[in-house]
Amino acid sequence: MVIVVRGELRLTTGKIAAQVAHAAVNLACQSEVRAPAAFEAWSRGGQKKIVLTSPSLEDMMTLEREARARRIPTTWVEDAGLTEVPPGTCTCLGLGPAPAATLDAVTGKLDLL
Amino acid sequence: MVIVVRGELRLTTGKIAAQVAHAAVNLACQSEVRAPAAFEAWSRGGQKKIVLTSPSLEDMMTLEREARARRIPTTWVEDAGLTEVPPGTCTCLGLGPAPAATLDAVTGKLDLL
Repeated sequence: MVIVVRGELRLTTGKIAAQVAHAAVNLACQSEVRAPAAFEAWSRGGQKKIVLTSPSLEDMMTLEREARARRIPTTWVEDAGLTEVPPGTCTCLGLGPAPAATLDAVTGKLDLL
Repeated sequence: MVIVVRGELRLTTGKIAAQVAHAAVNLACQSEVRAPAAFEAWSRGGQKKIVLTSPSLEDMMTLEREARARRIPTTWVEDAGLTEVPPGTCTCLGLGPAPAATLDAVTGKLDLL
């Protein structure tokens, strides 16, 4: 599982942590229902989560298209906008769970957060 | 759901985000099985996640005891220790899902991360 944080928003650490957690729970819950084998493999493998950053929403939309083309599950996190950003702002893109090599083909050039 | 990050470790933002995400997924998965009504209430309420910080492991162990006394579900996150901290280091304590007032009675005095 990879979660990509939208760097241009310059969110605080606490906000980033909560947004990444939203993405991780969404991906876990959706894969448990739609792709139980992938969910099981990820669970047994220690529920690995990699947090990366991408500069802009446009770049993240490109990532999402590339992930979908490879049938990697995705989820967008939109913030409720009560504190740091306007309501509905996309803060994170979650990808997976999927084999590391599959995820790496899409996100391998991004920086660690 | 509240996730308390162990402040004394001075982890990087990316590490904190991944550890908080581990806690959130653990709490969600365990409540889905053991406390489906609490899980449903939390899901329908927007899967709220609050990220707080506590200075030391000792303080967090006190929090865990207080949570257990109130029958709030808890989970510890231990880092695999490949990068920033030794293997098995406790990085986060997750609490919930539970009603806001119940969680607030235990964690209300902690600072936001």
